[in-house]
Amino acid sequence: MKEYQTQYKQYLLENVVPFWEKHCPDREYGGYFTCLDRDGSVYDTEKYMWMQWRIVWMFAELYNKVERRQEWLDEALQGFRFLTRHGKDPQGRYYFSLNREGVPAMAPYNAFSDCFAVMGAAALFRATGSEEARREALSAYECYSGRESRPKGEWTKELEGKKEYMSFGFYMMQLNLLSVLQENLGSDNSRELARLRRFVLDTFYSPSHGVVFENMPREGGPDLSSMAGRHTNPGHALEAMWFIMSSARRAGEEETVRQAADIVLAELDYGMDREDGGIYYFLDYLRKPHVELQWDMKLWWVHCEALIAAFLAYEYTGDSRFRDRFAELHEWTWKRFPDPEYGEWFGYLDRRGEVNNTLKGGKWKTFFHLPRMLQTIGCFGEDR
Amino acid sequence: MKEYQTQYKQYLLENVVPFWEKHCPDREYGGYFTCLDRDGSVYDTEKYMWMQWRIVWMFAELYNKVERRQEWLDEALQGFRFLTRHGKDPQGRYYFSLNREGVPAMAPYNAFSDCFAVMGAAALFRATGSEEARREALSAYECYSGRESRPKGEWTKELEGKKEYMSFGFYMMQLNLLSVLQENLGSDNSRELARLRRFVLDTFYSPSHGVVFENMPREGGPDLSSMAGRHTNPGHALEAMWFIMSSARRAGEEETVRQAADIVLAELDYGMDREDGGIYYFLDYLRKPHVELQWDMKLWWVHCEALIAAFLAYEYTGDSRFRDRFAELHEWTWKRFPDPEYGEWFGYLDRRGEVNNTLKGGKWKTFFHLPRMLQTIGCFGEDR
Repeated sequence: MKEYQTQYKQYLLENVVPFWEKHCPDREYGGYFTCLDRDGSVYDTEKYMWMQWRIVWMFAELYNKVERRQEWLDEALQGFRFLTRHGKDPQGRYYFSLNREGVPAMAPYNAFSDCFAVMGAAALFRATGSEEARREALSAYECYSGRESRPKGEWTKELEGKKEYMSFGFYMMQLNLLSVLQENLGSDNSRELARLRRFVLDTFYSPSHGVVFENMPREGGPDLSSMAGRHTNPGHALEAMWFIMSSARRAGEEETVRQAADIVLAELDYGMDREDGGIYYFLDYLRKPHVELQWDMKLWWVHCEALIAAFLAYEYTGDSRFRDRFAELHEWTWKRFPDPEYGEWFGYLDRRGEVNNTLKGGKWKTFFHLPRMLQTIGCFGEDR
Repeated sequence: MKEYQTQYKQYLLENVVPFWEKHCPDREYGGYFTCLDRDGSVYDTEKYMWMQWRIVWMFAELYNKVERRQEWLDEALQGFRFLTRHGKDPQGRYYFSLNREGVPAMAPYNAFSDCFAVMGAAALFRATGSEEARREALSAYECYSGRESRPKGEWTKELEGKKEYMSFGFYMMQLNLLSVLQENLGSDNSRELARLRRFVLDTFYSPSHGVVFENMPREGGPDLSSMAGRHTNPGHALEAMWFIMSSARRAGEEETVRQAADIVLAELDYGMDREDGGIYYFLDYLRKPHVELQWDMKLWWVHCEALIAAFLAYEYTGDSRFRDRFAELHEWTWKRFPDPEYGEWFGYLDRRGEVNNTLKGGKWKTFFHLPRMLQTIGCFGEDR
């Protein structure tokens, strides 16, 4: 594993970080450009909140965990100032997007805008000790967790005829946020984290089906009678499992580490495309038609999260099956995603593994999954 | 062309209509199932308003234009009763969906739910002379056109930082609805139709760029600085051009017929995938990354609308280039979309033309584009 780690850290520092340092800062208005084409050129200037706060987080994280480079801290700080100045509606919820100048462009209909603000502000507090950053992290967390019962607020379209489900994404991110607050602010979240680890595993993973479901009826499930009930997202499940493994490891809950690692194995088998390789984006559990046309595509973030999950499962359990899975994934992924010409990774491959879209950043891809993966694996063991 | 016409009409009556007659009716609650897998089996029971009203329209249309089969009329009528009983919110807007039993499932955030109600009710008035159907068509039209300035109503997410565009889709469908009302209710819409033909052509088609843009700034455009401004949808443009050609032909505006036919040729060239054949779903005008991952897929409806546009352009102008385009499209399309085993067409092919999803019907595919194409071409000249 040591060789992989060296390669990953080097690629992070020599390839991925320089790409974003060069192309993402908006030196005129503040914040970042994330709609970057293959060569880093800007093809749209809208500032999507998920994407913006993730960049704040990543630069602060690099500063906290890799090297105390002032330019990384400055980059995170300028984004923090832009976003806290322009980003919130009168109720304190983060808008979904701003225009280049900072004028609200899309309503705060999405709770994950608040979620990523927690992460960015918390990492920045650790880097600077700034009271403002600490308050921002805590208030954004209050906002996020206050949206549990109705995450889309007044933009909710579901009515009484729609079956109600609990959403896996909401709780896995809540678990991640509590870890982030514990790590960066020193918050005492141990009990709540232990509760959430059990809740997520017991609620969304179905032992008899062997997979994690994205939408679970409150009365138990899964509900195999609807598209929403059968919807699965292996990359999401894998990401959650490494959140759970590392949080359980810190808490000394080895049984939970082992359980989550078993689910990693199950999800890797379940999500794998046995014909063309790689991991599907979405699957209908019963292999009925999936409503999303991109269901069979191979996405960079899914493969990043799968690499982390396999890597950590190996490090935590020593089980050689995880090492083999990691090596297979490494092989498939590194052959297809990296752009040899302009650096960074393509985000979107078709089912066969060919590039479908040349963007390096956009509405949903930013300086986040790839560098987080490279840093998590490349620097594993350095700062624990 | 006569041979194609015979083939199309036969496929409509012997293949497509029987598939939907057999699988779509919900004999227990009323309305229709549209989430049908390859073999017609139901994989979800939600009743999406666009899909429901389009079935009412299609069965009524077959009754009006192809053959006075009582079972077609009955099928349209049972859907009409279900939808008018359960489908509207207190302001008279159609919900986006109902559950199987008819309880509202998704809010009325989409003006096209009203749009397709106009079509279904109008065709049913022509079939039955029912005053209720006439009133329904007119009130749904009032509702649709009243949503011009804010089609999503209170579910609008765009704020002041978002550039405002006029939407091609809204006006092309308004033009289509006025034609439908004229044809079925005898409404005197000639002046308004003439105005809309000019408005759509002059506003959304840019002669210097040679294509139709989906989003145009009010002050003129196109706006090539944003993803939304550069967004084009060749299938949509082709559909609109045949609406315009047939409406202009009825009005004796031969100059407009010719102009729309020229745009058909331009859009067929523009949208064509020169490597793998077929017509792309979405294109960024400057070939920058498109935000929608399915941009390069080949969709059944795009090819249906392209076939109608090429066919009518040939019939109206006699220009042999349209006959050649039609023959090429026919060749590519009929080799890939039809399901030889269970009948009907697959809806979604990947860029290379291979089936991506086995559904015959879903949230966006129903008894509409394919049978409308087969009927428009197959029965052309019969009932004029």
